[in-house]
Amino acid sequence: MGGIIQGCPSNMTIDFEGIQTTLNRRRPGQSTLVSPRNEKDEVEFLSGIYQGKTTGTPIGFILRNHDQRSEDYEQLHDAYRPSHADFTYDQKYGHRDPRGGGRSSARETVCRVVAGAIAEQLLAQVGITFSTYVDQIGSCRFISSDFFSTSHIDQSLVRCPDQTSTDQMVALIEETKREGDTLGGAIRGIIHGVPAGLGEPVFDKLHAELGKAMLSINAVKGVEFGSGFEAIHMTGSNHNDLFINGFNTQTNHSGGIQGGISNGMPITFRVAFKPVATLMKTQQTIDAQGEAITLEARGRHDVCVVPRAVPIVQAMAALVILDAYLLNKRLSL
Amino acid sequence: MGGIIQGCPSNMTIDFEGIQTTLNRRRPGQSTLVSPRNEKDEVEFLSGIYQGKTTGTPIGFILRNHDQRSEDYEQLHDAYRPSHADFTYDQKYGHRDPRGGGRSSARETVCRVVAGAIAEQLLAQVGITFSTYVDQIGSCRFISSDFFSTSHIDQSLVRCPDQTSTDQMVALIEETKREGDTLGGAIRGIIHGVPAGLGEPVFDKLHAELGKAMLSINAVKGVEFGSGFEAIHMTGSNHNDLFINGFNTQTNHSGGIQGGISNGMPITFRVAFKPVATLMKTQQTIDAQGEAITLEARGRHDVCVVPRAVPIVQAMAALVILDAYLLNKRLSL
Amino acid sequence: MGGIIQGCPSNMTIDFEGIQTTLNRRRPGQSTLVSPRNEKDEVEFLSGIYQGKTTGTPIGFILRNHDQRSEDYEQLHDAYRPSHADFTYDQKYGHRDPRGGGRSSARETVCRVVAGAIAEQLLAQVGITFSTYVDQIGSCRFISSDFFSTSHIDQSLVRCPDQTSTDQMVALIEETKREGDTLGGAIRGIIHGVPAGLGEPVFDKLHAELGKAMLSINAVKGVEFGSGFEAIHMTGSNHNDLFINGFNTQTNHSGGIQGGISNGMPITFRVAFKPVATLMKTQQTIDAQGEAITLEARGRHDVCVVPRAVPIVQAMAALVILDAYLLNKRLSL
Amino acid sequence: MGGIIQGCPSNMTIDFEGIQTTLNRRRPGQSTLVSPRNEKDEVEFLSGIYQGKTTGTPIGFILRNHDQRSEDYEQLHDAYRPSHADFTYDQKYGHRDPRGGGRSSARETVCRVVAGAIAEQLLAQVGITFSTYVDQIGSCRFISSDFFSTSHIDQSLVRCPDQTSTDQMVALIEETKREGDTLGGAIRGIIHGVPAGLGEPVFDKLHAELGKAMLSINAVKGVEFGSGFEAIHMTGSNHNDLFINGFNTQTNHSGGIQGGISNGMPITFRVAFKPVATLMKTQQTIDAQGEAITLEARGRHDVCVVPRAVPIVQAMAALVILDAYLLNKRLSL
Repeated sequence: MGGIIQGCPSNMTIDFEGIQTTLNRRRPGQSTLVSPRNEKDEVEFLSGIYQGKTTGTPIGFILRNHDQRSEDYEQLHDAYRPSHADFTYDQKYGHRDPRGGGRSSARETVCRVVAGAIAEQLLAQVGITFSTYVDQIGSCRFISSDFFSTSHIDQSLVRCPDQTSTDQMVALIEETKREGDTLGGAIRGIIHGVPAGLGEPVFDKLHAELGKAMLSINAVKGVEFGSGFEAIHMTGSNHNDLFINGFNTQTNHSGGIQGGISNGMPITFRVAFKPVATLMKTQQTIDAQGEAITLEARGRHDVCVVPRAVPIVQAMAALVILDAYLLNKRLSL
Repeated sequence: MGGIIQGCPSNMTIDFEGIQTTLNRRRPGQSTLVSPRNEKDEVEFLSGIYQGKTTGTPIGFILRNHDQRSEDYEQLHDAYRPSHADFTYDQKYGHRDPRGGGRSSARETVCRVVAGAIAEQLLAQVGITFSTYVDQIGSCRFISSDFFSTSHIDQSLVRCPDQTSTDQMVALIEETKREGDTLGGAIRGIIHGVPAGLGEPVFDKLHAELGKAMLSINAVKGVEFGSGFEAIHMTGSNHNDLFINGFNTQTNHSGGIQGGISNGMPITFRVAFKPVATLMKTQQTIDAQGEAITLEARGRHDVCVVPRAVPIVQAMAALVILDAYLLNKRLSL
Repeated sequence: MGGIIQGCPSNMTIDFEGIQTTLNRRRPGQSTLVSPRNEKDEVEFLSGIYQGKTTGTPIGFILRNHDQRSEDYEQLHDAYRPSHADFTYDQKYGHRDPRGGGRSSARETVCRVVAGAIAEQLLAQVGITFSTYVDQIGSCRFISSDFFSTSHIDQSLVRCPDQTSTDQMVALIEETKREGDTLGGAIRGIIHGVPAGLGEPVFDKLHAELGKAMLSINAVKGVEFGSGFEAIHMTGSNHNDLFINGFNTQTNHSGGIQGGISNGMPITFRVAFKPVATLMKTQQTIDAQGEAITLEARGRHDVCVVPRAVPIVQAMAALVILDAYLLNKRLSL
Repeated sequence: MGGIIQGCPSNMTIDFEGIQTTLNRRRPGQSTLVSPRNEKDEVEFLSGIYQGKTTGTPIGFILRNHDQRSEDYEQLHDAYRPSHADFTYDQKYGHRDPRGGGRSSARETVCRVVAGAIAEQLLAQVGITFSTYVDQIGSCRFISSDFFSTSHIDQSLVRCPDQTSTDQMVALIEETKREGDTLGGAIRGIIHGVPAGLGEPVFDKLHAELGKAMLSINAVKGVEFGSGFEAIHMTGSNHNDLFINGFNTQTNHSGGIQGGISNGMPITFRVAFKPVATLMKTQQTIDAQGEAITLEARGRHDVCVVPRAVPIVQAMAALVILDAYLLNKRLSL
């Protein structure tokens, strides 16, 4: 896996250990609940950083796979797994690389985490910080818009900052694992310290960019900001955020964004993940010729990817916010 | 209002009457339920069309306002309306044009409808059609993923294709209007005839682009695709769409998109709108100096914009799909 | 004619009279040497400016034609004029608007001048100024890299800052006019005050962007920077610009740009224009069916567009420099 | 060195040997006339190609350096070489990687050649072919617009298809080498088989894109199309390309492009290279503190890079033409 980061400011000190710590939060094999595949996810930087500081030119990087087992994917050369992208890739490109699940594998998100970790380090310098956690797995939900620290969140095996909910979620995952089935969930994101004024006014509204970034993550089926889908049930007089204390607002149904532009309040959003499609159960499907085939359960997969998706969501949020931050600088000479 | 459409294929016959019909679905004054402002929303094309056919060069157009009452906005020069973009625009730009609600007014969506109507006309030629309707206002919900014709939908004052739901929604709007309050709602979109293979694989997934387009519409707080937020409550074995009848699937929890690429099944999504912020009630707020002021109810506003947002949602969907359609042509020589 | 300027900084005071003065330098009818078509080229701003200051949102504008004579172009509906774009547009688009010479007419450059005039006004605030003049018409050449003021340049009917050369150029134009023929020429550009550090390092080098901007102007056939084509005849030891006086250089063969990035010395370039293709002579050509036809001399055209192209070259240079200036701001937080 | 190729059509067979052959034309050590640095320039593809065919997704690649001698660059850590980008990079980025000459080293063009070779292979399938050769070194010029085959061109040590000129050029290079000095030159490009209709009409004219691509190559100071700077000396009646034989033209002063769009005639251009700045002579310069220093001649450098630049020019041309070719497909449904 590899990528190139364009547009990173120059002369910024990079905390390599911090990047690795962030990568470790995404990597398989980190706990008994997730895929036992053992990838170290060590990143090698090829350009754009010299003597520990960014040069302002593109940052190229690569992560070598160590524990791939291509034989696990051999049966997939010609199979169209249900609710996977095998069929759509073949339709689009007429040719497809099936190794490791191919380009549509969530393994690609490791690159997003590298870039996001750098973005987060830069944003921390201007006081922008992130709290991202699991607030639902299956039907177990922990309702909150509070800002929890990463260390607090990581005390939970499922990255839910509430102990009772964590216990229920872990139990649910273990039960589902025994059944060879999978689970979906939701991730809550809160961003503190975003100055008022970030975001573009029409097509590239700040939450539109954040939303696109979230929907680009594998298995995401929905995204909402502030009051989100709940807003449908409210009236305007209840929903309006009235100003108090200068330019703060009493409520934050807007989720920190008005007219596509940040208003200085916390940015809040929530992302829905479907249960992953790869089961540890035999499934009926078809192959490229449209013939019915039986798909054996094979490989080493997660019952619920949502806890591992926490750093991915945070990475994408950081990239969008840093872009908006830098773009804003062009408003004055 | 005006805009420029770039990248429209050349030599396409434009149905001007069809564009006007689509604009009429968005314009104020179209029924007793919506703002009585009387804008004809007639579009003048300035370039890019000659003898009724596109020339392949940018299509410039303009719509002159006829029934603006700038005096309605005079009190707003210095006021920060609650849950509006007045404050955020000032923070971002340091300067703001408050006339007509300014650039953040939903009046700008008239341009999206012009462009979307053209996109729809082109897509119809390749068999891609749209069904977009209101499925919720306040807490009245009509659950459906069926494809209804535009003429069927437009028989309802609120553009909900179900009679019983329509009656309830109309009653709710009228009651809320008497209270000077506003309502949110949701719009369901279904797209038929999209060939398998549209969309990009990673950051620009088809539903990520659609989602961004939806979130860029004023008052939208959330968007979901296929099973959406409901997917959280399902297991993988229930959620997976199994292949039947060649490459069709038995269910369509994926909403017609796998791995960011269309799979030939109907594309389905749902968009949540908050209740609009402008009330016909007196509200407390602040001005640019942070001083408390009282905002009188003034102007001519909608209790619920969701029925009028139907053609906007459809326009944005059509623009995204046409872009993806054209982009795909570069995959072969 | 019209356009939209994106990305202009907000809160900038616009000198409307200054824009008109710049437009007057490009417009036909300004002297006895140029096309007598009488266009006032008055620009109407439709958005993006409020109370004389930019709002930071797109600046839409329009210029209405007053003295078009579409009947002059009637014979051209089906004709392919030699060395015009009639044939290539038909090949590309399959449909073409021939009125006023169509989209390929140099009349479109009026929009570039509007945008460029605004860019110049902003750049003047940070000390960046432009000197652009004719240094060759036909074989009359005035060799110089000096910076002349616009008022000095405009004392010459042909915008050449040298009196002797001006006299020769005027005589040559008048003689060529009598023959119904046309002339090419060259424009020299010098930009002062560009700080070191503007431009991108690889594909988007500062002179590559400037060169593209120049080559996008009608009738331009070549562009060179610093020593340009003369560099071929020099050796490295003669060509190298040695540092003196801190970081200034003794010579400026580099034309103010090293490795695609400005070095603080004056940016110098030269642009070659072919003689325009529309002659006041009868010409043999073909029509869209490939049949031979005779093209009558008609319309009101310039013998030599180069003096009128001076503000166009300057406008494009200003747009590129302002873009580079603003883009550079993203290098720091 | 490495890069990512985006937008390559899918399902295309790649001739890896052909890529290597093209790389060999650029690499140092290929003859006695060029730098003796011995780089194999072997490319490793990391993604986007499977079983010898493109997958339609980004093609990542890397080339490892084998014969770098970083110690040759040690004296340069703090030195500002005359007419190099050391100073401008420091001014722009505040931080600079000096190893191997850093990012501004022409070594980066190896990546362009990888991408260009693939573009050329695709274009050959639709009948578009390239002839690129040296037509001038120092003051030795071979005037021609003929199309010579690559094998014919490569019979010349300096890639000039004329034997007499080759002999003179080789003698000039050898003499200049003895003096420790360097030489500039010019490269002629001719593209056959480009269908009429490629290119965009206004800012992104086909020759504007080609020109930008050429000017982005290290050491290029100028570019001209068709008649180029010579056009200044012609009148319109001589310069106009009259139609003959259907839609062909009698002359090709336009260089195959009218109004920014290809007309089906050969595309012709010429690119001027300055003499490279690195001399095998002692030079006076300054360091980052502005102190005078003496720069020893060190490293292994070319007297004249122009022959090695031939495949680079051709690569950039192929990339631009393929982009234009693919972009044109969006003009119809």
